This record gives sequence, structure tokens and C-alpha cells, in this order.
Amino acid sequence: MNFEEILKSKTERAEAVLAQYLPKETGFQKKVLEAINYSVMAGGKRLRPILMEESFLLFHGEGKQIEPFMAALEMIHNYSLVHDDLPAMDNDEYRRGRKTTWKVYGDGMAVLAGDGLLNLAFETAAGAFAFAQDEKTCRQIAGALQILGKKSGIYGMIGGQTADLEAESGAELTEELLLYIHENKTAALIQAAMMIGAILAGADDKAVGAMERAAYNIGIAFQIQDDILDVTSTTEILGKPVGSDEKNHKLTYVALHGLEKSREDVRRLSEEALAILRSFETRNEFLEELVQFLITREK
Amino acid sequence: MNFEEILKSKTERAEAVLAQYLPKETGFQKKVLEAINYSVMAGGKRLRPILMEESFLLFHGEGKQIEPFMAALEMIHNYSLVHDDLPAMDNDEYRRGRKTTWKVYGDGMAVLAGDGLLNLAFETAAGAFAFAQDEKTCRQIAGALQILGKKSGIYGMIGGQTADLEAESGAELTEELLLYIHENKTAALIQAAMMIGAILAGADDKAVGAMERAAYNIGIAFQIQDDILDVTSTTEILGKPVGSDEKNHKLTYVALHGLEKSREDVRRLSEEALAILRSFETRNEFLEELVQFLITREK
Repeated sequence: MNFEEILKSKTERAEAVLAQYLPKETGFQKKVLEAINYSVMAGGKRLRPILMEESFLLFHGEGKQIEPFMAALEMIHNYSLVHDDLPAMDNDEYRRGRKTTWKVYGDGMAVLAGDGLLNLAFETAAGAFAFAQDEKTCRQIAGALQILGKKSGIYGMIGGQTADLEAESGAELTEELLLYIHENKTAALIQAAMMIGAILAGADDKAVGAMERAAYNIGIAFQIQDDILDVTSTTEILGKPVGSDEKNHKLTYVALHGLEKSREDVRRLSEEALAILRSFETRNEFLEELVQFLITREK
Repeated sequence: MNFEEILKSKTERAEAVLAQYLPKETGFQKKVLEAINYSVMAGGKRLRPILMEESFLLFHGEGKQIEPFMAALEMIHNYSLVHDDLPAMDNDEYRRGRKTTWKVYGDGMAVLAGDGLLNLAFETAAGAFAFAQDEKTCRQIAGALQILGKKSGIYGMIGGQTADLEAESGAELTEELLLYIHENKTAALIQAAMMIGAILAGADDKAVGAMERAAYNIGIAFQIQDDILDVTSTTEILGKPVGSDEKNHKLTYVALHGLEKSREDVRRLSEEALAILRSFETRNEFLEELVQFLITREK
């Protein structure tokens, strides 16, 4: 199988894991369960759970405790999209070619669906303790939960969303603020993915710290690449309108530093990330290819 | 000290515990941190953390691991109020005599503040593992986290909120549905409080199950008492408009069963709860008084 075929099978595997933890649509609260499943099953590449499992495999992790965390992280990513799309936030009516959750279920139900997904994420992750055979595993799962909470929360993703909302409402967007937004809105969940994979595989603190830095580089590079494509790609290739950042007066990395330096930085950041991934005693070649793919992608 | 004085000092203790886990208002995400603190520090009796700690004491619990859970549960209660008040939900402009969070910070920021609080709740609770001395405590904390997730989520509080929103949008409100809403919207977090207190104190499954039943009775009785007061009290005593349920065409327990049976049921439910609390080898008289107070209160 070539890389794209392997990636496709990994995406299917991540979807199957996720599906195990999604609710059956029954009971008096049926509507919110439908809205949750509608929003989570909208597709996507499932990159975060894949990055998590591949980081787990890099450190020769064993056992099922990774699965609830894979599902939990994807739930957190999806709840953030449901709430981001709300009229109170970005007011988006379409995502991935389908109506957004609030457009289908109403904005009150979309608030509850997002809350339900975020809560279900932690409920699901806490379920991993069922696979804890001994105190060591119990503590690893506890550590993974703490990372999940931190990187998703007010010192992680929600912090980034807040600064982004403020910037959209007219706060002055400096380079420092832009980097804060990218680090937290984009890189934090990638850090959660790679750090949790490492922790659950029993990697030591030093290795987990190295994964945090690698994931930072990947997240920032991924975001700069997004900004580059918005300028250089075509609507046909990208599957969404190009030039939207400029139209929305969004200050981007490209607008700040120009195309050439942006491309150079993507290259530098990804090389640093790959150097870290190659520095451990064990290797995961698919993970290395995936990182390269994410950063050199054309859509 | 009489009961009211003790209750006041317990409320102050719960507030002090909570304050330890609230964020400092600094950084690029400052605005969401302000909104979080504004909503949490709006006051209230802090009944849930008090019920949790008193249940912990009933079973002679020791150690600091109860504190992050006390804070976490109060955060969850408060995030649900922040989101309930949103224009997309109940569209309330005042709560406890102050402007609601969205009225002060805007509805986008209120969505993020609620998300931030919910996330912070689990982040805080997961911090309890720092107090786990051995595998037994590690597993107790894991159990407490699972209860917190379940009772707050789509099979608990969020389930109740969903059914309530549906009922307000015109779904037929039957007795069965009304009980489902009360059980999940009101009783579920009281169950979380009392079960988590028991689990963290090392109570066995049978005792935790008994606390779940006692808390169910307390939650339902508390809610019926609310409905009774809405009919029988005065605006002066209650500090909020009376008769609002009838005005809002809300089907309540009192409307379904009449005042007399409602009062009888409150008495029966509270007696059953007290019988359970008196059935253990150890007793907590303050907890028993608190339960009686909650159910016989006049505001």
C-alpha cells in the first residue's frame, strides 16, 4: 500500500474507534444525541486520533487504553467546531459541504450538543481506567487526562479561541498575538494527541516533552501552510474559497512575513519536528511521512 | 452555633476551596477568564460542594482529594447556568440580581466562558490525582471522575436540559417526561455530589448506591418544593417573581398533582432520604439537618 492508502485505512480505523463511543439515539434526550452524532460523523481526516495512536506506536504502546482517548480528542475537536459555527460566534451555515449543526437543530440545541460532546469526551477518557491493570497504568491514564484537560482548556484551545474572537472584534493583532492564537487554537490539540500517545505508551517525561515540542512545530507549520494555500491555491483544488483571509481582513502569517519567509518557516519547523521524531530509540516511519504530508499538502 | 451559622461557615469554606482553582485574569485570553470568574463568583449557597464534603465526612473521608472535586462540581453547575441564560437558550438578562454573563461579555464570549468552565471542571478534578498516595486512592479518584462525567452529561444533566428545551419548544409534557427532567436537570448533580463524597471516602459500592438513591429523593423533593413555593410564596420572601411557572405555561408537579399531594410527596421523599442517611454505621447530623432544611425551606 502507498502512503495515501495507508492513511485511508488509518482514518477508517479512527472512525471505527470513535463510533464505539458515540451514543445511541434513544430516550427523552434523543435530539441532543442526534445532533452530537450529526456533527461528529460529518467526516474529516481524523488527524488528531491518528497522530495520537501513531505516537503511541512510536513508543511501542500496548493495550486498549489509547482508544477512549482517541475518541475523546476527536470529540473535543468537533465540539469546538459546533460552538465556533454558532451565530453567537462565526455564524457559519455550512461546514464540509453540509449544513452546520445549529442550522439543522437550532442554536439552543447546538449549544447543548457542543456541551454534551465536551462532557462526553472526558466521560469517555475517564472510561480508560477500566483498562488499568496496575498502579502504573492508573497513573499514566491520570497523566493523560490532565494533558487533555490542559491543552483543550483556557490555557490551551479555548484560550486561543478567546484571543481569536477578540482579534475579530477589533483587538490589535500583533505578531505575538497571532502566534499565541496559532499555538493554542491549532497546535494545542496536536500536542495533546502526541503527548497522550507517548504517556500512555509509558514514555518518560523527557520524551513527552520532546513530543510536545515536535507537535508545536507541526501545529504552527500546519497553520502557516493553511495561510499559504489561501493565497496560492485555487478554489478548485482547495474545495473552499481562496483569498478569504484577505477578504476578511484577517492578519495572517503570510501577510506579516511574505510568502517566501512563510515557506521557509514551514520547511524549518517541519525539519525540526522530524528531527525530534527521529531522535528516539524507536522509529515510526508512517508518523514521519504523515508529518511531511500535513505540511507539504496542497489542500 | 445554630444550623444557619454552621451553614454559613460551610458556604464560606466551599467558596474558599473554589477560589483556589479559579484562574488569574491575565494573558491574551484574559477576557474569558474574567467572564469565568464573574459567573462563578456571583454567589449562591454552594450546596453541591457542601453536600459532597458532608457525604465525604459521613464516611469518615480523609485527605485533600475531595477539594478539587468540590470545585469541579460547582464549576459544572455554574457553566450550565451561563449557557442556560444565553439568548439561544432561555435568553435571561438577570440572575441573582446581576446581569448574566452574556449580557456583560457578549454571547460569543459567554459560550466560551461556559466551555472554559466545563473544561476547567474536568481539568481541576483530574488534578486530584496529585493527592493519590497509592493504587486504591488512584482508583477511587478514577471512579469519582466517571460519576462526575456521567451525571453531568448526556445521561445526566445535559439530558435533562435537552428534554426541558424540547418541552419548552412544544413537545408534549407528560408526567414521565417531567420526572425525567427533574431527575436529570436537578437530581443528577446532587447525586454526583453525594456519590463522589462517598467514593472518595472509600465507601463500598452498596453504600454509594444508597447515596445515589438518597440524592435522587433529595433532588426530586427539592424541585417539587420549588414548584410549591412558586404557587404559595410571595415575591418578597422568594426574592423573585412568584407564579412564573403558571405564567410561562410550565407543567409542574403541583399543576399535575395538586398542592396537597405535592406536599405529601416532599415529606415522603425526604423521609426516605433521611432513613437512608441514618442507615449507615456512621452518622453526620449536619448533613441530615441540611437535607431537612433544603426540603422545608420557604425560599
